[in-house]
Amino acid sequence: MAIRAAVAGASGYAGGEILRLLLGHPGITIGALTANSSAGRPLGELQPHLPALAGRTVEPTTPEVLAGHDVVFLALPHGASAALAAELGPDVLVVDCGADFRLVDAGEWERFYGSAHAGTWPYGLPELPGGREVLRGARRIAVPGCYPTAVSLALWPVYAADLAEPEAVVVAASGTSGAGKGLKPHLLGSEVMGSMTPYGVGGAHRHTPEIVQNLSAVAGERVGVSFTPVLAPMPRGILATCSAKARDGVTAGAVRDAFERAYGDEVFVRLLPEGRWPSTGAVVGSNAVQVQAVLDESAGRIVVVSAIDNLTKGTAGGAVQSMNIALGLPEGLGLSTMGVAP
Amino acid sequence: MAIRAAVAGASGYAGGEILRLLLGHPGITIGALTANSSAGRPLGELQPHLPALAGRTVEPTTPEVLAGHDVVFLALPHGASAALAAELGPDVLVVDCGADFRLVDAGEWERFYGSAHAGTWPYGLPELPGGREVLRGARRIAVPGCYPTAVSLALWPVYAADLAEPEAVVVAASGTSGAGKGLKPHLLGSEVMGSMTPYGVGGAHRHTPEIVQNLSAVAGERVGVSFTPVLAPMPRGILATCSAKARDGVTAGAVRDAFERAYGDEVFVRLLPEGRWPSTGAVVGSNAVQVQAVLDESAGRIVVVSAIDNLTKGTAGGAVQSMNIALGLPEGLGLSTMGVAP
Amino acid sequence: MAIRAAVAGASGYAGGEILRLLLGHPGITIGALTANSSAGRPLGELQPHLPALAGRTVEPTTPEVLAGHDVVFLALPHGASAALAAELGPDVLVVDCGADFRLVDAGEWERFYGSAHAGTWPYGLPELPGGREVLRGARRIAVPGCYPTAVSLALWPVYAADLAEPEAVVVAASGTSGAGKGLKPHLLGSEVMGSMTPYGVGGAHRHTPEIVQNLSAVAGERVGVSFTPVLAPMPRGILATCSAKARDGVTAGAVRDAFERAYGDEVFVRLLPEGRWPSTGAVVGSNAVQVQAVLDESAGRIVVVSAIDNLTKGTAGGAVQSMNIALGLPEGLGLSTMGVAP
Amino acid sequence: MAIRAAVAGASGYAGGEILRLLLGHPGITIGALTANSSAGRPLGELQPHLPALAGRTVEPTTPEVLAGHDVVFLALPHGASAALAAELGPDVLVVDCGADFRLVDAGEWERFYGSAHAGTWPYGLPELPGGREVLRGARRIAVPGCYPTAVSLALWPVYAADLAEPEAVVVAASGTSGAGKGLKPHLLGSEVMGSMTPYGVGGAHRHTPEIVQNLSAVAGERVGVSFTPVLAPMPRGILATCSAKARDGVTAGAVRDAFERAYGDEVFVRLLPEGRWPSTGAVVGSNAVQVQAVLDESAGRIVVVSAIDNLTKGTAGGAVQSMNIALGLPEGLGLSTMGVAP
Repeated sequence: MAIRAAVAGASGYAGGEILRLLLGHPGITIGALTANSSAGRPLGELQPHLPALAGRTVEPTTPEVLAGHDVVFLALPHGASAALAAELGPDVLVVDCGADFRLVDAGEWERFYGSAHAGTWPYGLPELPGGREVLRGARRIAVPGCYPTAVSLALWPVYAADLAEPEAVVVAASGTSGAGKGLKPHLLGSEVMGSMTPYGVGGAHRHTPEIVQNLSAVAGERVGVSFTPVLAPMPRGILATCSAKARDGVTAGAVRDAFERAYGDEVFVRLLPEGRWPSTGAVVGSNAVQVQAVLDESAGRIVVVSAIDNLTKGTAGGAVQSMNIALGLPEGLGLSTMGVAP
Repeated sequence: MAIRAAVAGASGYAGGEILRLLLGHPGITIGALTANSSAGRPLGELQPHLPALAGRTVEPTTPEVLAGHDVVFLALPHGASAALAAELGPDVLVVDCGADFRLVDAGEWERFYGSAHAGTWPYGLPELPGGREVLRGARRIAVPGCYPTAVSLALWPVYAADLAEPEAVVVAASGTSGAGKGLKPHLLGSEVMGSMTPYGVGGAHRHTPEIVQNLSAVAGERVGVSFTPVLAPMPRGILATCSAKARDGVTAGAVRDAFERAYGDEVFVRLLPEGRWPSTGAVVGSNAVQVQAVLDESAGRIVVVSAIDNLTKGTAGGAVQSMNIALGLPEGLGLSTMGVAP
Repeated sequence: MAIRAAVAGASGYAGGEILRLLLGHPGITIGALTANSSAGRPLGELQPHLPALAGRTVEPTTPEVLAGHDVVFLALPHGASAALAAELGPDVLVVDCGADFRLVDAGEWERFYGSAHAGTWPYGLPELPGGREVLRGARRIAVPGCYPTAVSLALWPVYAADLAEPEAVVVAASGTSGAGKGLKPHLLGSEVMGSMTPYGVGGAHRHTPEIVQNLSAVAGERVGVSFTPVLAPMPRGILATCSAKARDGVTAGAVRDAFERAYGDEVFVRLLPEGRWPSTGAVVGSNAVQVQAVLDESAGRIVVVSAIDNLTKGTAGGAVQSMNIALGLPEGLGLSTMGVAP
Repeated sequence: MAIRAAVAGASGYAGGEILRLLLGHPGITIGALTANSSAGRPLGELQPHLPALAGRTVEPTTPEVLAGHDVVFLALPHGASAALAAELGPDVLVVDCGADFRLVDAGEWERFYGSAHAGTWPYGLPELPGGREVLRGARRIAVPGCYPTAVSLALWPVYAADLAEPEAVVVAASGTSGAGKGLKPHLLGSEVMGSMTPYGVGGAHRHTPEIVQNLSAVAGERVGVSFTPVLAPMPRGILATCSAKARDGVTAGAVRDAFERAYGDEVFVRLLPEGRWPSTGAVVGSNAVQVQAVLDESAGRIVVVSAIDNLTKGTAGGAVQSMNIALGLPEGLGLSTMGVAP
């Protein structure tokens, strides 16, 4: 019997990508589609790339509309998930693509989000050490942020193998869909095409504590992270360039080994052959992650680069992958490793 | 038992897209992958977006390597298909993405291609009138050109309903992948980004006679076509803006009716609701076609716009769809109507 | 003594381009910069590419602020120019980049703009026949629309030489800056990158009557125009692909001759050598126009393609060029024929 | 009397940008234009954005052709400059945009370039401490690399004020024109649009020792640099995100002060108001540099971001600015601080 899924926030980019994946998922039937300001409009106007749902009407995001589904995906602004989830009952699988339940530390939450901490849910990044265990049978999932997905997958093998000092530097370029569909002047096509600009520099971006949390958990000590996100002239993709000071005596072979151990058996994370580097274009529309690492002996740093599609592995794909694990389905169901390239 | 398919020209953009679709096709097993100058290299270097085939080695394009498959896709330069097909035997389904067997008129072939006419194969555009009949059971298929796909689907309903004079004007913008992977200065990223430029203006483009052939067959008289292709700053997509002088007395309703009749039952061609216009972004990676038509009463012309992905519906998707029909499989197997957007 | 110029609408794209050109104009001093919702903000926040004016404060757009200048450029929404101009006095040169005073026919104005016709000012397209005469000594100038600039310069030589029937078909792709800085969902970078889409199809675009007016004036009879604008994934540039049915007996040589006569002495309009075609990338940031024409003997049509920068020759450059003529300055002062390419 | 300048390498992107700037330089007359494989062709085919030179014929790059000029710009592959310069005589100002004479340390040259060290010329980055002194009256100038320009201007104030430890981490995204006009598969538009990918990771890029040299000279000790260049989907621009561990006790105010001291009097380098960050779009076509710095107290690092146009300030603009100083002309002659935006 098919699993029935609702999507709250169906008018946005994350919601659209969740729907795209669910339409291709053999075990899922799509139920309610909800949004707030777009309620009442046909989905075809909002997501013209999904003709199979063009005639469906968007409903308001209320507990009543979302009731009666086996899975509810939330792709909502921060702060909206807790109240909704509370009304959906403990047996419904709630997959939250927002930030509300990602952070363990209430103080960090309050410092970066300025509101009371809602709690912490099982974290939907299966490729982290122990990542699958927390998801099996879960009925609440906090989907990671797109940057934390790219950065954590780049750096955790370094810290798991104790290869680097606990201070990482990350510069990550993201396509504009990561900033959502909200109407802001700096997101106009005229502004973004042909231009790159950083934002949230100096530790101000809200994904910083999430990255710190993930890496610190693996390292067993606090890993400081200097994180600079950059808006790039492309619709999709994150390229995360990460580095950390190598511990004394670390060799290039040890770096390679750490990544082969980490990702040798992973379907969605691909350690590239030596000498080749990730490209966001190669993972567009896919749940794949490309990773490469190198030891810069002159600078004494391990440099790791990862590429993901921010909307797929970085949001909706990670959400579906985690859902599959939680429901006991094959982990890759409805997901692809193939990018739409060029 | 799975159908075994080989792809000749696996290193190029068309070949890569065929492989991407076949990897997602439940009835197909991928056999030999061949190319010429890239023979001997791992496919992972040439098509990094297809990790499932990364370890496969590209073989030379010879009849021996291509032998023993149920289906052989040819994505080769013009002129190479006839000799290969002759060696593959009559029971193998040969799907040619090149131009060699598209034109009926030998004189037109010689005028535009400068070589002897190889013949004519069943034409792989199922949505044309009678399009499916010629494909059922076929063992040779000529896949249409990308521009003729977009333009023919835009205009044939106009001529089937005898709504316009037999002189069409077409301006079609294409993403750069339509020009292939060959190294030409004007295809460099620095040249194409932020710029648009026409080429093959004035009837010089080789897709012109193919468009004329398709429209004339429906109209029952020769339809002259002024065709201007334009290189656009995007990797994929064709937006074809087509118009023809309306016959006296044609109404807006008659135009709409003609398209509803033509496409009401089609899965891959979507006539948009009135007032909305096609966008190439909505069909990226999909086999879908978006179409909209309007009567410009002041100018006395019917204007039709279509959008396709040149690599999918315009090449590889059309090839797979035609293969499905030829082999008696469900027509949409392995194909999607969902674009990867934004 | 330097000429003092004010710019109303200094916060938008047209206003920014006017300022960029005036900063490089040796005869102009920049006076008041005004806007409405941005009044009170430093220009550096609104036009970060103009550091020379970064510290200037934007003032409200009022007659008082605009008083006391020799030239006032208006880059305002439609309908705002007439009242302002009336208050500025007859000796001030008012250069209106809006549409209010472009159309001669009041009925056409009302049909396309839905308001009362404000009147008609000298039209700022010097390269039209008689175009310079109307500008000399003028104190009111209506700057043409960006599409009409590109299309009129492409087609008037055809009609001046009576080479074609009075029915033109135009498909023109524009960069997104032509749509302005207003916050609209379809102008988000995520939507426009990698996508092309038409708008205002079927004669609905407001530039249609302006194109008709210009071509009809040259032809001496009404020229019908089927005009389809297309939004292209680039910040700047218009590529206009125009065609018309050749009159009987017209030769390729006659077409070439017409354009050589029209543009042989023009500084800013360049008829390309035969066989080469315009590219918007080559004219970015410049006041140059690239033009090429060909006779398609098979289709019986003359095809002309022009490329401009919509913000420069299409708006601000045309405005400055017209101002120069009106004030008796060298026509090209402060303007460049060099594009910023690649 | 006008200064006569020749440009060797006039067919490439750097050569084209030098010509664009020289055409707008009031003190320069353009003499010979040379190239190798393009010799004999009209410049209009190679640089269609420079109509003023369209009729000029490209000559071969030989000492004879380059003789008789006051200034010779060399925009040639590495290794070609020394022999040419030797033939041009000591009184000719030779401005080399290649790498041959940038590095002081012969060992570093040989390690990164694999050939014998040609020597060291005065370095063309006037905004470095003492940068103008070495250029006054010079007759040989080594124009910096584009990345070293962006990175050195970002970080030298940090080291001049002794604010950070001598280990910097730099991730710099560059537009594709930085890779030149050579035909390489990864530079095709289809590959670069919508994609980001790093290259030369781990210290392998040839600009690394030049960055180290510049920063070490200011710091008075060797500054190690982890440098990762990234190819970005835009034609022009470099965004350099640079950071270094703050020395104990460094305050945000001290960081701001260091940059105000460094750039308070500079025309081309603009320290942005606090809270605003550089954008490459704002400097396209200009010689301007945008810089912003911040202290990340949590991560303990100073983060500095700079934006330049790689072809202008990063190559041709830097070359012209240095020429102006060498010849005793006003430093900004022929150069602009205004970007072509959007």
